[in-house]
Amino acid sequence: MPDRPKTPLLDQITRPADLKGLTDAQLVQVAHELRQETISAVSVTGGHLGAGLGVVELTTALHAVFDTPRDKVIWDVSHQCYPHKILTGRRDRIRTLRMKDGLSGFTKRSESPYDPFGAAHSSTSISAALGFAVARDLGGVIPEGNGDAIAVIGDGSMSAGMAFEAMNNAGHLGKRLFVILNDNEMSIAPPVGALSSYLSRLYAGEPFQELKAAAKGAVSLLPEPFREGAKRAKDMLKGMAVGGTMFEALGFSYLGPIDGHDMDQLLPVLRTVKARATGPILIHVLTKKGKGYGPAERARDKGHATAKFDMVTGEQKKAPSNAPSYTSVFGNELVKLAAKDDKICAVTAAMPDGTGLSLMAERYPSRCFDVGIAEQHGVTFAAALAAGGMKPFCAMYSTFLQRGYDQVVHDVAIQRLPVRFAIDRAGLVGADGATHAGSFDIAFMANLPGMVVMAAADEAELAHIVATAAAYDDGPIAFRYPRGEGEGVDMPDTPEVLEIGKGRMIQAGKRVALLSFGTRLGEVKKAAEALAAKGITPTIADARFAKPLDRDLILQLAADHEALITIEEGAVGGFGSHVAQLLAEEGVFDGGLKYRSMVLPDTFIDQASPADMYEVAAMNAPQIEAKVLEVLGVATIGEKRA
Amino acid sequence: MPDRPKTPLLDQITRPADLKGLTDAQLVQVAHELRQETISAVSVTGGHLGAGLGVVELTTALHAVFDTPRDKVIWDVSHQCYPHKILTGRRDRIRTLRMKDGLSGFTKRSESPYDPFGAAHSSTSISAALGFAVARDLGGVIPEGNGDAIAVIGDGSMSAGMAFEAMNNAGHLGKRLFVILNDNEMSIAPPVGALSSYLSRLYAGEPFQELKAAAKGAVSLLPEPFREGAKRAKDMLKGMAVGGTMFEALGFSYLGPIDGHDMDQLLPVLRTVKARATGPILIHVLTKKGKGYGPAERARDKGHATAKFDMVTGEQKKAPSNAPSYTSVFGNELVKLAAKDDKICAVTAAMPDGTGLSLMAERYPSRCFDVGIAEQHGVTFAAALAAGGMKPFCAMYSTFLQRGYDQVVHDVAIQRLPVRFAIDRAGLVGADGATHAGSFDIAFMANLPGMVVMAAADEAELAHIVATAAAYDDGPIAFRYPRGEGEGVDMPDTPEVLEIGKGRMIQAGKRVALLSFGTRLGEVKKAAEALAAKGITPTIADARFAKPLDRDLILQLAADHEALITIEEGAVGGFGSHVAQLLAEEGVFDGGLKYRSMVLPDTFIDQASPADMYEVAAMNAPQIEAKVLEVLGVATIGEKRA
Repeated sequence: MPDRPKTPLLDQITRPADLKGLTDAQLVQVAHELRQETISAVSVTGGHLGAGLGVVELTTALHAVFDTPRDKVIWDVSHQCYPHKILTGRRDRIRTLRMKDGLSGFTKRSESPYDPFGAAHSSTSISAALGFAVARDLGGVIPEGNGDAIAVIGDGSMSAGMAFEAMNNAGHLGKRLFVILNDNEMSIAPPVGALSSYLSRLYAGEPFQELKAAAKGAVSLLPEPFREGAKRAKDMLKGMAVGGTMFEALGFSYLGPIDGHDMDQLLPVLRTVKARATGPILIHVLTKKGKGYGPAERARDKGHATAKFDMVTGEQKKAPSNAPSYTSVFGNELVKLAAKDDKICAVTAAMPDGTGLSLMAERYPSRCFDVGIAEQHGVTFAAALAAGGMKPFCAMYSTFLQRGYDQVVHDVAIQRLPVRFAIDRAGLVGADGATHAGSFDIAFMANLPGMVVMAAADEAELAHIVATAAAYDDGPIAFRYPRGEGEGVDMPDTPEVLEIGKGRMIQAGKRVALLSFGTRLGEVKKAAEALAAKGITPTIADARFAKPLDRDLILQLAADHEALITIEEGAVGGFGSHVAQLLAEEGVFDGGLKYRSMVLPDTFIDQASPADMYEVAAMNAPQIEAKVLEVLGVATIGEKRA
Repeated sequence: MPDRPKTPLLDQITRPADLKGLTDAQLVQVAHELRQETISAVSVTGGHLGAGLGVVELTTALHAVFDTPRDKVIWDVSHQCYPHKILTGRRDRIRTLRMKDGLSGFTKRSESPYDPFGAAHSSTSISAALGFAVARDLGGVIPEGNGDAIAVIGDGSMSAGMAFEAMNNAGHLGKRLFVILNDNEMSIAPPVGALSSYLSRLYAGEPFQELKAAAKGAVSLLPEPFREGAKRAKDMLKGMAVGGTMFEALGFSYLGPIDGHDMDQLLPVLRTVKARATGPILIHVLTKKGKGYGPAERARDKGHATAKFDMVTGEQKKAPSNAPSYTSVFGNELVKLAAKDDKICAVTAAMPDGTGLSLMAERYPSRCFDVGIAEQHGVTFAAALAAGGMKPFCAMYSTFLQRGYDQVVHDVAIQRLPVRFAIDRAGLVGADGATHAGSFDIAFMANLPGMVVMAAADEAELAHIVATAAAYDDGPIAFRYPRGEGEGVDMPDTPEVLEIGKGRMIQAGKRVALLSFGTRLGEVKKAAEALAAKGITPTIADARFAKPLDRDLILQLAADHEALITIEEGAVGGFGSHVAQLLAEEGVFDGGLKYRSMVLPDTFIDQASPADMYEVAAMNAPQIEAKVLEVLGVATIGEKRA
């Protein structure tokens, strides 16, 4: 264990109410200690560091001024919630962050009454805060009480359409509501989009120190103009603000920008708005992601996400990797194809690194589009690129593609436009837990008419699949692959263009056929090895396609075996359901077939390692083996879960 | 046939290029005749009238100034596209609008090269136009050529987050791009939200005539300042504009507002921007929905959607209805429940009439929220209302709920919050065609852990189901029902709270069990009558729940019958797939069962009457009968499709 930082004042804070008796100077000290404790905790757990460091003062000030949990502080995305967790009774478990049975890396309702609304996806906080504000005014009853609602949202998250929708609605309703714009000029990647430029202009040309001084002067006067009436207050605020008309256009009062690391600004501003606000107000707070920890401040991503690290040097302790990640295989193969075909282009929604498109952005910047946190727009933009004669790859995580689902249906599938969907983080993802699981895409993509749906069984397969998607121009095509490293297989020099709708045989066997769709193939092979020791040699096939299905392969497998078991890293309704529909329509069940479909269970699975999560999901080799034995009637009861 | 209007000049226009030789005065005349022809056509077809009447001048001007189809005019939603269709070679079929084998009521790529990007859902046009602009600059090759891209978007559509995302991206990219904001102060319902107020303020206090005169004066000078350089041009435009800073904040040049019914303003403005624009420009055009047709102008919805009507009186010719619509049953039952429980509230995304919530808005305005075209926000807002102790009903069309899918997963299902999803327009919808079909919701909702999914078999069932949803507080619950009238059954005085996860037997029979989920039950009963004449009495059951399944009922049906057939108004992956998964896991297929699942086919079905669409889908009584005969081996080949 590394030395823990000395935190004498923080040690006395077991819940936010304990902050109430402290002086402002003591609150500054709490924030300082909170920063050290956050760094210390993340150094042993890994996780999201930069965002939390940027808001230690804001976190302290919010809990000191507002009455949580009666007042609802809603952290957008909630990467920045670690200091909040430390202050709200979870410090004793903070070094279990993102671990199995530990604290979630995000806010979570089931974890604490201080987390009134969980988050992990971006830009939901204003909608949520507005819902609480309206429920309060309608007399909604909950155990903690319904007080003020405060959304804390980053400038990156503010660029999403959903945040705009919520602002538009909140400005219209006019309820008392607080939106704190945490403007650190960073989301996960540097921010893009016109809104970002606009926010920069709000304080362009104002040296930060001067602004700070000016704001301080103004803040000390704030209560009075409020008392003296709306007009002077407005003049006062206008004098303080250097912009904000866009938010005012949406019906919000605008206050700021203020220095989010200066408690002498934060505390009086929050106290004043709490005492006086009657409608929606946006408080523009400037912070620095990674603030107060040199290695994070200096990092390109401002310490956004980190492995465990050495607190003194900041050096991260990453396990050596044995194989390239699926993400990097996708990025590399795409760039190779783009070198040969100048119509290939790519779209990401604020995740150039996460999707592997940063390489494309570097090599072919004019053909790589980061549209911001804007999946709806991103999908339709890609559809129009296709309609305009380009070959777009739209790369999104499975769980974020859910944000653009209607656009996939309405703009891509109905128009049969050749958009290539690269669906990363398919299946269970580990430390990010249930909110980031890619569980539903097979089902929601494969039932769209004209959509081709593929999954990679390993990284070499992914290379073939990317080449296949590039070559396919007859309509939309989607391919999925998981988070993490590949299997360590040899990579092809020249990836093949696969035949659409054709799977491949892996191993010929008897009695039972195992038909895998995706990377469970590795576990299937392990299960087959264990079964061989018991005298059972299963047939193994890789479906490659959930749509169109390889009818010949599937019907042959059904005809030649006593049992057929499908395996996929997705919920019911996907690959196995399409296979069952085929078998039913072809009358295969009429005469009997031991058919089973192994899918993700009907539950949201909490964070753990991916292998542990698949253990919970009963989709690792031992469970596959057990399923075969059970279906063939070979197992004793005791062996079933062996 | 009513008398056709005299349209001597329009008669000479077979394609937009024919407009090029006309004088401005002749273009005014074309627009006038186009309005008369539009009214005449819709009087015999019914459909969307008001939106088209509002843009006849704009349509004429765009096609006269730009070079379509090389230049891409993209109509947002495209309710307003009828005049565009008349001018672009489809006048001979304009009186087949929205009919089987006729013209689509929306723009459609497969219908004409003048429809570069189809639409029907809102707020996609800027994303699409940006995609075309980028494809053009990247050298994308398509047969019509890649010229300018022009999005025409209403003020209602502009309030959706997706439009904001697209503006934000377009402002950042800085490509030459035209966005025409068609501001008629109406979407389908009167607009809501702060943006709407903002747009109103852009021309508040300026008498329309004065504005018009001022704009005219400015327009006549426009080309010159452009020639003299950017600075003076900007001053010029600023002088003309009375606002628009919000769009400028997003990186657009702003021009307007101008009178969208005055060709003397439209033509020079469009000519000038076409000649000179280098980056993205927003042209703010004021129009009146329903313009030039008294009955539409006077209607509350400005003639938004109409049945066939008498051209002189405007009187609509509606077929008398035999039963209340499902929509109205939902609205009425909800209001009854809301009268008894002040925690019940409702959320709609700009569809108070379409979802039946206008009654709720009238009776309990403080508990009914129209959030605007903002499904993402609407779903999360409802989730937070639930978290705040309210009982929210979130009423959306199936196809529009796709827009809030991630929010259903991330904010509602993962947090297990008791939001009640009232899913209207489930299944095939008739004249609105494929874009409005509610085909996928069973699949995408039923595989979410903790979600309850119900469907109404008739309007009495819907009443029970609404009561059930109101009473259920253990997590999210969704219920679906179709467009159109009910079956004409008696309505219960006091709807029952149904037992969760229990279906009901309709008729006991032999050999084959028909298990219906939703309103196909009526067709199943008809099929059973026809089968009775052939000596077959099927068992019939109404599943009521796709999740949780009625395991006992389903396993009993499987055990007692030679064949089990499920029927649902949805795509594969839904109810039937969940039943198949249960049967497989329980080993029912091991010994053989003639199982079939009748689902919507794997194709997007074009508009027709709902009954005709279900005929295409092979889901009417004759096809159900044929399926039974086929499965039981009773039919001859010739009878199969009888």
